[in-house]
Amino acid sequence: MKTTIALGLGLIASAAQAQNGPADPAVNETFKFAKPAGQPDAIETSPDGQITVQVSTDNDGRAVYMIARNGKAIVEPSRLGMMFTDAPKIERGLKIESVAHAKSDTSWTQPWGEWRTIRDNHREMRVRLMESSALHRRYDVVFRVQDDGVGFRYEFPEQQALPHANIAEELTEFNIAQGGTAWWKPAFLWNREEYLYNRTPINAVGTAATPITMKLDDGTHIAIHEAALVDYASMAVMKTEGNSFKAVLTPGSGAPKVVKTGAWTTPWRTFLIAPDAGGLYMSHLMLNLNEPNTLGDVSWVKPGKFVGVWWKMIKGEWSWARGPRHGATTANVKTYIDFASKYGIPGVLVEGWNIGWDGDWAGNGSAMQFATPAEDFDADALAKYAKSKGVSLIGHHETGGAVSHYESQFDPAFKFAADHGEHVVKTGYVADAGQIERVNADGSVSREWHEGQWMVNHYLRVLQAAAKYKVSIDSHEPVKDTGLRRTYPNWLAREGSRGMEYNAWPGKNPPEHEVNLAFTRMLEGPMDFTPGVLSLTGSDNSPIQSTIAKQLALYVVLYSPVQMAADTPENYAKYPQAFRFIADVPVDWEDSRVLNGEVGDYVTFARRDRKSRDWYVGSITDENARDLTVTLDFLEPGKVYEAQVYKDGPGATYATEARHSIAFETKRVKRGDALTLSLAPGGGQAIRLKAL
Amino acid sequence: MKTTIALGLGLIASAAQAQNGPADPAVNETFKFAKPAGQPDAIETSPDGQITVQVSTDNDGRAVYMIARNGKAIVEPSRLGMMFTDAPKIERGLKIESVAHAKSDTSWTQPWGEWRTIRDNHREMRVRLMESSALHRRYDVVFRVQDDGVGFRYEFPEQQALPHANIAEELTEFNIAQGGTAWWKPAFLWNREEYLYNRTPINAVGTAATPITMKLDDGTHIAIHEAALVDYASMAVMKTEGNSFKAVLTPGSGAPKVVKTGAWTTPWRTFLIAPDAGGLYMSHLMLNLNEPNTLGDVSWVKPGKFVGVWWKMIKGEWSWARGPRHGATTANVKTYIDFASKYGIPGVLVEGWNIGWDGDWAGNGSAMQFATPAEDFDADALAKYAKSKGVSLIGHHETGGAVSHYESQFDPAFKFAADHGEHVVKTGYVADAGQIERVNADGSVSREWHEGQWMVNHYLRVLQAAAKYKVSIDSHEPVKDTGLRRTYPNWLAREGSRGMEYNAWPGKNPPEHEVNLAFTRMLEGPMDFTPGVLSLTGSDNSPIQSTIAKQLALYVVLYSPVQMAADTPENYAKYPQAFRFIADVPVDWEDSRVLNGEVGDYVTFARRDRKSRDWYVGSITDENARDLTVTLDFLEPGKVYEAQVYKDGPGATYATEARHSIAFETKRVKRGDALTLSLAPGGGQAIRLKAL
Repeated sequence: MKTTIALGLGLIASAAQAQNGPADPAVNETFKFAKPAGQPDAIETSPDGQITVQVSTDNDGRAVYMIARNGKAIVEPSRLGMMFTDAPKIERGLKIESVAHAKSDTSWTQPWGEWRTIRDNHREMRVRLMESSALHRRYDVVFRVQDDGVGFRYEFPEQQALPHANIAEELTEFNIAQGGTAWWKPAFLWNREEYLYNRTPINAVGTAATPITMKLDDGTHIAIHEAALVDYASMAVMKTEGNSFKAVLTPGSGAPKVVKTGAWTTPWRTFLIAPDAGGLYMSHLMLNLNEPNTLGDVSWVKPGKFVGVWWKMIKGEWSWARGPRHGATTANVKTYIDFASKYGIPGVLVEGWNIGWDGDWAGNGSAMQFATPAEDFDADALAKYAKSKGVSLIGHHETGGAVSHYESQFDPAFKFAADHGEHVVKTGYVADAGQIERVNADGSVSREWHEGQWMVNHYLRVLQAAAKYKVSIDSHEPVKDTGLRRTYPNWLAREGSRGMEYNAWPGKNPPEHEVNLAFTRMLEGPMDFTPGVLSLTGSDNSPIQSTIAKQLALYVVLYSPVQMAADTPENYAKYPQAFRFIADVPVDWEDSRVLNGEVGDYVTFARRDRKSRDWYVGSITDENARDLTVTLDFLEPGKVYEAQVYKDGPGATYATEARHSIAFETKRVKRGDALTLSLAPGGGQAIRLKAL
Repeated sequence: MKTTIALGLGLIASAAQAQNGPADPAVNETFKFAKPAGQPDAIETSPDGQITVQVSTDNDGRAVYMIARNGKAIVEPSRLGMMFTDAPKIERGLKIESVAHAKSDTSWTQPWGEWRTIRDNHREMRVRLMESSALHRRYDVVFRVQDDGVGFRYEFPEQQALPHANIAEELTEFNIAQGGTAWWKPAFLWNREEYLYNRTPINAVGTAATPITMKLDDGTHIAIHEAALVDYASMAVMKTEGNSFKAVLTPGSGAPKVVKTGAWTTPWRTFLIAPDAGGLYMSHLMLNLNEPNTLGDVSWVKPGKFVGVWWKMIKGEWSWARGPRHGATTANVKTYIDFASKYGIPGVLVEGWNIGWDGDWAGNGSAMQFATPAEDFDADALAKYAKSKGVSLIGHHETGGAVSHYESQFDPAFKFAADHGEHVVKTGYVADAGQIERVNADGSVSREWHEGQWMVNHYLRVLQAAAKYKVSIDSHEPVKDTGLRRTYPNWLAREGSRGMEYNAWPGKNPPEHEVNLAFTRMLEGPMDFTPGVLSLTGSDNSPIQSTIAKQLALYVVLYSPVQMAADTPENYAKYPQAFRFIADVPVDWEDSRVLNGEVGDYVTFARRDRKSRDWYVGSITDENARDLTVTLDFLEPGKVYEAQVYKDGPGATYATEARHSIAFETKRVKRGDALTLSLAPGGGQAIRLKAL
């Protein structure tokens, strides 16, 4: 039996194309939907007027929001609310108490990134909601509306009727107003974020990690994600029915998924909204919704390429553990230092350098010592040698999921890194989802999830501990990226999807994988994918489903300020002409453009080096060959460039030995010229446009 | 980075059609799939050899099970496992220690039900698994295989390495091996089980409550559910990718979803498997997997029809609360007693008879007094009057979700019921999902879910408290039915889906709803749907999408041992000829048959009265008219029956005023005769086959 009846809202969103913002009466009349009398309108539009959001309450007093683009619904009325483990949920019986609007148009500078300058032009609407019941609890829902997306978050003030919030679940809904196609990874499975992307109708999504990218029936592209995930649990979206989703927060080991006291806010729930795939990538919404740099001077944060003692371990030829196959020996590392130095690559990653790898460390890392090298790794000598060769070692902290154990060694660990000239440390959390080991104050052990509240905070604790020693972080098995590199510029990159390593093993990444990444994972931020395996072979010489040219293009397509040349020095020696591009390509950009692209099919990026006037172009395709014509309208007028082209050679295809077929070409180009990029199946093309 | 690689299992299940059971070498060779050497085979078949299950371990030592029918996979290798909040999960590194087989073929008697005699013919396989890691934890997975389905459960022995189990999640997977169509309701939404059914491709399911019914591409029908849900959290199935699902347990207010100590078992995870829809209904797997009657003599449990002070409240004409519109007045109840007595209906439900309804009680029932009548309800006089008229009052305990409050009144509440001749009490838990109020020992309040472990146990505590007073229970807003009526025969029925009440309100049940129920909700067990609204009008005279004949047919289609005649006496007075069927139809059956049916389209049931030789036939359809021919091969040979037919009249359709068109016919029939049932759109047909 139920006594309250939820009535559908009569949605009217036919013509909200007014350019004049929320005060415009035309918008109000054409856009608004049914709501109780006596409540203020709560409507906001993007600066260009194309995107409109509205908040209202339904017949049961449940707050709902909706989003439209050019008057057509993108998000149908979707409920807001919050459940607690020890208090009635906040959902029904709400009234809109007040609505406040603001606007802002500013710019800020990224210390490193895809773009130097980020414009933040948005309108803001703050809707104050209060329960009409005895408890009279209240919260604000705050919307930020840009031309390329919408973010909103809950802001709970300190209040007597809710002195603490033990959050059982967030009741936010995402009811997509149209059918379409979705690209998504399942959430809450054992292998965390490391799944291939599904491409299904929106209504065939299961429970998905964010970002989830959708192309709606009317061609609008959207991506649902979150920004500024701090002191809260990461959100997945669970398909309920049809094209409707609800938030599901990641569990922790405690009864509430999130615990809050005093005043608190949720992360921003975000919709990137664009007419095409490229528009999703070009949005700065995620970064704009994060707080500015909190670390002060970050001139010590150094983007850069690196090589590393790694691929041979991944392939099973060397071991992390000590013994006859130990990879991180002084001699081996010297080889890598020499190679890096020779090609101007500033970093050398060394995995397995420390004590703790000998047993079954995955999911069981309590033997890891983060300031104690293995006997055959002469850390002091190598640090000195690296310095003499103008390169730096990159540290490595693999926790094996023993996170409290790691935290207890923060200071010696990062001091050791700093003392050995390591500007960057790669961290690792190899443990199945839900198997992070947390030691409580009483000595008992709890099992945490990589994306639960406690771990979300842990990843930030690492940044803070590292910053004290001017060390930057590249997190593997991380929490997803929600733009926090703005706030913590020493969070250079992370993994958080299937990277190159899967090409070492059976079950390799298919040719579409990197194309999928471009408009899904890469919407989060930098990924340490570790491209550049020019040998195109994994363990036991198993073939990688890529051409060589595609490997090169990945350096432009898959942005990261720390970009690995993942293959071995001896393999690179076999491909000197192709390797030239890896040696040349920068990792820090003045500007970035998406020249073309369809989610999961193909994409072409152009990026301008931050330290020169050179541009770089990278284009990749899935298993289908394509000819893509791009116009060089981004080049400086009147300047001549030398195009150094690395392209799929005759007969190239990912599917046969012809994957090694590559061709090189050099020609002069200028602004406005058109280039046709011929991509082989599973292929790509990389171009350096060197300003002459 | 991941260091362990999950390899797909090479599934070979091409020809497991041997009839000879698990020992047959042909089965082993054709059915088994890859597994580590040195482990015993773990294969079991159904008594008729058509269904085969196998357990193995994958390359990471994860236990997996699979199910095939006639050699064709129904369930692909699906993992087993268990996560804890304070210990490493049990999933990887398992070895099969031993496999034991058993068989059994017995029968038992239902004190009331759809069938008097239940045959339990099954094979059993017990697979003992042990971790090869340091902890050496172990569990058994026990499979029961019938000709019409498979059940399995985890059985954890008492063991030092797992002294208690704080279960964070159960890792059981359900990877359906074929595409097909699914009928399902979303899980974990605010309105609990009260959603319309979705009919979608299997891969478009979201997170579904069980039972979820599927018709696979090869025509096989399956339903996933659970049996014997005791001291555990209810399970939903979350679609992960494609046609794959994983278990999701219902949360509680504590950190673990389930807490166990010593030796413990899960409920049975069940697959009904049949060649057609009717075969799903005819399975006795669910009942067979429950423990026998634990209450001893249950001759005091009385199936029966009832009328009630209810529909006028649901329609908004009367109120539960005291005041001028109060429904449960002495005078009103007398009218219902008189009506029930006149037509031989043994029960009169009265809602709103007690103190506690005056405020906003839904989700907030702490004012409810379960032994204190409202001033205008003379309980003693009415009990006496009812007895004098040969009928009994049916009690009503609405908790409003204040469950600890209710439990504190168990004894006075059930004593009051017994003292007033109430053999049955209808209970209610009107609170949104996750909003059950539990008062802890220290006075703090926790919020529980209707289907979480604590509430699962609460519903059983009610049965035990009621049994002490020889009272039976009809639970509304219940936990789902998992066959526990076998163990607790005083659990007569429950709601647990959208019942008739939704026809009082806007957003009425569509014509397909009851047809959907037949092969989904009704696979659980009895539902107190409350059919029989012959006026076919809800609040404000809004039309119900049914014909009159369909209302009658529902008494045969939707089995319940307590079956309401939900309309008002004054309305029934307008339909005397149709009402005759309601007066005649029994609620307790000797035998039941599904004569035909397609999930969500139509269904015809025949049931034999337990107290006579009469048979009753009920047939219903969705929005489409149909002619269904049934052969009366279930009648006794050589006997003549009078068929009293209640059928859709000329022009009948749910869509217009012609929904009231009904026709009556009487004719003689005998075994082997064929009848053609002509069902109108949204219509039905009811037949009494009176043995002459």
